[in-house]
Amino acid sequence: MTASAASTATPDLLTALANKATHLRMDSVKATTEAGSGHPSSCCSAADIVAVLFFSVMRYDPKNPKLPNSDRFVLSKGHAAPLLYAAWAEAGLFPKSELLKLRTLGSDLEGHPTPRLSFVDMATGSLGQGLPAGVGLAFNAKSIDKTDYRTYVLMGDGESVEGSVWEAAEVARHAALDNLCAIVDVNRLGQSDPTMLQHDMEAYRARWAGFGWHAIVVDGHDIGALVAAFEEAARTKGRPTVLLAKTFKGRGISFMENHPEWHGKPMKKGEETQKALDELTRQLKPGSTQAQIPMPTAVKAAAPAKGTMAPPPYKLGDSAATREAFGAALLALGEADSQVVALDADVKNSTYSDKFGKRFPDRFLENFIAEQNMLGAAAGIAACGKIPFVATFAAFFTRAYDFIRMAAISQSNIKLVGTHVGVSIGEDGPSQMGLEDLAMMSAQPGVTVLYPSDALSMYKLVEAAAAHKGMVYLRAGRPKTPVIYGLDEQFKIGGSKVVRQSAADQLTIVAAGVTLFEALKAHDQLKAAGITTRVLDLYSIVPVDRATLLDCARATGGRFLTVEDHYAHGGIGDAVLSALASEGVRVHKLAVREIPRSGRPDELVDHFGIGVRSIVEAAKEIVKTASR
Amino acid sequence: MTASAASTATPDLLTALANKATHLRMDSVKATTEAGSGHPSSCCSAADIVAVLFFSVMRYDPKNPKLPNSDRFVLSKGHAAPLLYAAWAEAGLFPKSELLKLRTLGSDLEGHPTPRLSFVDMATGSLGQGLPAGVGLAFNAKSIDKTDYRTYVLMGDGESVEGSVWEAAEVARHAALDNLCAIVDVNRLGQSDPTMLQHDMEAYRARWAGFGWHAIVVDGHDIGALVAAFEEAARTKGRPTVLLAKTFKGRGISFMENHPEWHGKPMKKGEETQKALDELTRQLKPGSTQAQIPMPTAVKAAAPAKGTMAPPPYKLGDSAATREAFGAALLALGEADSQVVALDADVKNSTYSDKFGKRFPDRFLENFIAEQNMLGAAAGIAACGKIPFVATFAAFFTRAYDFIRMAAISQSNIKLVGTHVGVSIGEDGPSQMGLEDLAMMSAQPGVTVLYPSDALSMYKLVEAAAAHKGMVYLRAGRPKTPVIYGLDEQFKIGGSKVVRQSAADQLTIVAAGVTLFEALKAHDQLKAAGITTRVLDLYSIVPVDRATLLDCARATGGRFLTVEDHYAHGGIGDAVLSALASEGVRVHKLAVREIPRSGRPDELVDHFGIGVRSIVEAAKEIVKTASR
Repeated sequence: MTASAASTATPDLLTALANKATHLRMDSVKATTEAGSGHPSSCCSAADIVAVLFFSVMRYDPKNPKLPNSDRFVLSKGHAAPLLYAAWAEAGLFPKSELLKLRTLGSDLEGHPTPRLSFVDMATGSLGQGLPAGVGLAFNAKSIDKTDYRTYVLMGDGESVEGSVWEAAEVARHAALDNLCAIVDVNRLGQSDPTMLQHDMEAYRARWAGFGWHAIVVDGHDIGALVAAFEEAARTKGRPTVLLAKTFKGRGISFMENHPEWHGKPMKKGEETQKALDELTRQLKPGSTQAQIPMPTAVKAAAPAKGTMAPPPYKLGDSAATREAFGAALLALGEADSQVVALDADVKNSTYSDKFGKRFPDRFLENFIAEQNMLGAAAGIAACGKIPFVATFAAFFTRAYDFIRMAAISQSNIKLVGTHVGVSIGEDGPSQMGLEDLAMMSAQPGVTVLYPSDALSMYKLVEAAAAHKGMVYLRAGRPKTPVIYGLDEQFKIGGSKVVRQSAADQLTIVAAGVTLFEALKAHDQLKAAGITTRVLDLYSIVPVDRATLLDCARATGGRFLTVEDHYAHGGIGDAVLSALASEGVRVHKLAVREIPRSGRPDELVDHFGIGVRSIVEAAKEIVKTASR
Repeated sequence: MTASAASTATPDLLTALANKATHLRMDSVKATTEAGSGHPSSCCSAADIVAVLFFSVMRYDPKNPKLPNSDRFVLSKGHAAPLLYAAWAEAGLFPKSELLKLRTLGSDLEGHPTPRLSFVDMATGSLGQGLPAGVGLAFNAKSIDKTDYRTYVLMGDGESVEGSVWEAAEVARHAALDNLCAIVDVNRLGQSDPTMLQHDMEAYRARWAGFGWHAIVVDGHDIGALVAAFEEAARTKGRPTVLLAKTFKGRGISFMENHPEWHGKPMKKGEETQKALDELTRQLKPGSTQAQIPMPTAVKAAAPAKGTMAPPPYKLGDSAATREAFGAALLALGEADSQVVALDADVKNSTYSDKFGKRFPDRFLENFIAEQNMLGAAAGIAACGKIPFVATFAAFFTRAYDFIRMAAISQSNIKLVGTHVGVSIGEDGPSQMGLEDLAMMSAQPGVTVLYPSDALSMYKLVEAAAAHKGMVYLRAGRPKTPVIYGLDEQFKIGGSKVVRQSAADQLTIVAAGVTLFEALKAHDQLKAAGITTRVLDLYSIVPVDRATLLDCARATGGRFLTVEDHYAHGGIGDAVLSALASEGVRVHKLAVREIPRSGRPDELVDHFGIGVRSIVEAAKEIVKTASR
């Protein structure tokens, strides 16, 4: 349907909003011209939408973007950042002169928005990520905090081909997020071509309505129609609403409007820019430019309940998979801390997050098989001060790596748990084996990477992960392993454990997860053969315990043997090499070096060269070489 | 609409197909019971669909799955692998006794299908990847080879939440792939819960029809209706067709049918399995079990045209971005080799693949902003013997990392080109900067990773990449850089170039891309300060030129300084460390160690510690330490 109902806006307000939109266009032009790069044409298509949202629809404090219960705005089309910055400057958060520092090294007004800015919840600029984040923000309001702020997500039209948009659409509908409103700025032109659907508004409507959303087609340059459409969205219950706004790229500047060649291009300083500004100035209507920004409903924030987590239910000699210990720890953490939230993508009975989900359904978001939305929503929930745990098979985090990348840029406080790692999962075969997770997670700056070997250390490290501010990745295995640590053992981010040592160790074996148990067996066999080895449980990969590694290097002649159920690049071996890069140590890496296949876990661990047999062989060779 | 039209199938054929389906169920049960793991219930829901496809609809040679112009079948719900294997055994490709080796180390009948099997084009098992691969297979028939084989993709219902499915749906519709037919096995039950839409067939219809597909709702256990629906699909022109098949998980086995707890669970050997087999046996109808499999239309395969590529249009002292050189090389390669194909996701005017697209529109697939579909389609096209080049911003390959992972498992012959790497892109900021691409690409076994520094080496390495069998990643920069190599210089996979050396070098500086030019400047400044350095252009990261690195180690006292426009983990520095891990060398890594921000390229290169200033400082410190 097309929005046509009259809005409650007065003629004065409509004039004021139109003038606001014109000012936003002018400021976007000025900033991008000054920067010498950027996307003025993409700002202009959305200027009316943003003016209506910021100066009539959204409830927020223009001086305090973090005021509780504020309506949220996510600029999913992050390349229109100057428009967002102009809106906040126009609202009064900072002086307009700051806009002219756009894209310079000293300014937080970057090419695409990041949460370095107080009014940004989630970095955007990789398209299709705003709606998943919006799902998280809206779920927080509806299910976790049970408050009435609304979430608005502005997307581009080209962007809506991204599959993550449809994952979010499906999850939002299923979760009945009627506090979520998406806007698609259908300006018809992509970067290199017109979009697939161009201005076929009925095709857009069919897609969104087909996905169960309330879909409103609206003229994105008709202020009154936009106000009415947002009012209709607010009245719509039981499902989310999308405004499909027909717009023109470069709107308001005749030499730019609807011209494809103006994508991502600033105007030249001087005459060209002045011509645009003159044309825009002539569009200013006489009358008010003042608008009353509505304030959020006051809410009494319930103080987060935070108690002490129950102690680990494991004792020395027990047997449990680290994924089971994660599930137990998550449940205990949920009891202790009301800020803890969990997200799943239809594997909760394999990752054991189902225990948390059953106990705390309001703090549990089931994404079904939509890993990208799961990650984006987690980042949105983290932006609300919560501590979201996201658990799936480690392999399937590769599906959401771009979301992890953007969460790292956002310095998001999300906790990821990747289960079913390595060839030790066995018969399911390579598609289900996480073998590159350490590489991909360690590559991102500021991400803590943990790899506990037994249930006790997993339990304690889940607690440490929740207490740590910043993204944490926990690697968990499928098979049961013995509990080798006692209840009093302490585990800290950046630590490690020497689990076997003697005064005359010839070599340090570094392992974690299932290979630690192979290393322990190898230690015994080697000892029987007269070779003494130190065995290090490197449960913290990033940050790594350099001090202990240095001690080991000194004690064992700079000789290391690393063994991991991970591909050879970017895992434990490389972490050791990198930590000791300047020390001239010698590291022999055992890792999975080819595409694996189905088989029994023990067969595969042996076959792919990371079992006790390979460790013993390699250790003998290293010691032999060293003694020559 | 619901399929109801009568099919052309005779009663005898319907009986034969029903019996085939029953045999497929029996074989799936036997194989998973013997394996002790697997998904018999997910096989049973789709058995009728597969029986109809394999024994009545699809045109192929059961003894030669690679026969040209065969209809293609992609089992996107890869966990139903036993059903696929049973179908090929039933068709006669291999003895049924092989089925009992399912999931064992010696057998290619793995837990999920891989192209180790002659009848598999693309590894599946990570859900949502079959349809993108199917888009590639169908595009190859329609646009590249212009032949009449059809492509069938069988998906699960839970799977259809994956965004990649909708990317593929959008691209397939836009490319009018009426030779593509998807089937969704709507069995209502996911792994951990019922699916979102359960058996709401109208909701499924609305989604697919909304995306412009011809959508047919069908009873997935009604053989006649299935035959009629596939006939309707084959008659439908101008758009792809989807069969939305209402089914029941575990169909045919009363204790399993429609019971959620049977997901991914084999039956117990003995009584339980026998009970199921007895029940299935009773379903066998008297009469024929023979079906005539139609053969493909014979096609005269045009011999691929392969000539010599034009020489690089660059000479010493020119200035060009490596991404420009990629565009020029791709165009020349397209002229020389009719098997070369290119794929884009709406950045072709930034990656310069637009030149190829304009010249060879039939060999160019525009995916708009759908990176996952782009990668999946490329793997599908590669499975047809083509050489697809996929180019986008390096950062956006993170969006499709799961597809890259599965392509690696498939040992797919795709070539990826990631442009706009590192902080040297400047003002656009971190969301657009590829800083983890070397880590993520190098982690996958069998992937070649190249990082040319100048236009000439890029041009020659594009040619080398096309000639190499296997996945190749080429890293390309945004800024223009000087051409430093002459026309006669040779570049090979696994090579490197010593670009500065003397008899008394104190240190080797290893660089590639923009940092090579920083290293060259540093070399000169250091020389002026009395420090002689060797400079190595490490244009091949995987495989790495270990021999030359060893030479450098010997010549410069085992001292290395690596410098890269990449995060510190998993890039050039770690490649050097890993190659020389056993040698006891000392490596000092310069890399980007925090989340970057917007700014001028030169400012950022300096600010984030990878510019000439940092290199000179670090080199001086290393040499000072070494001389102590």
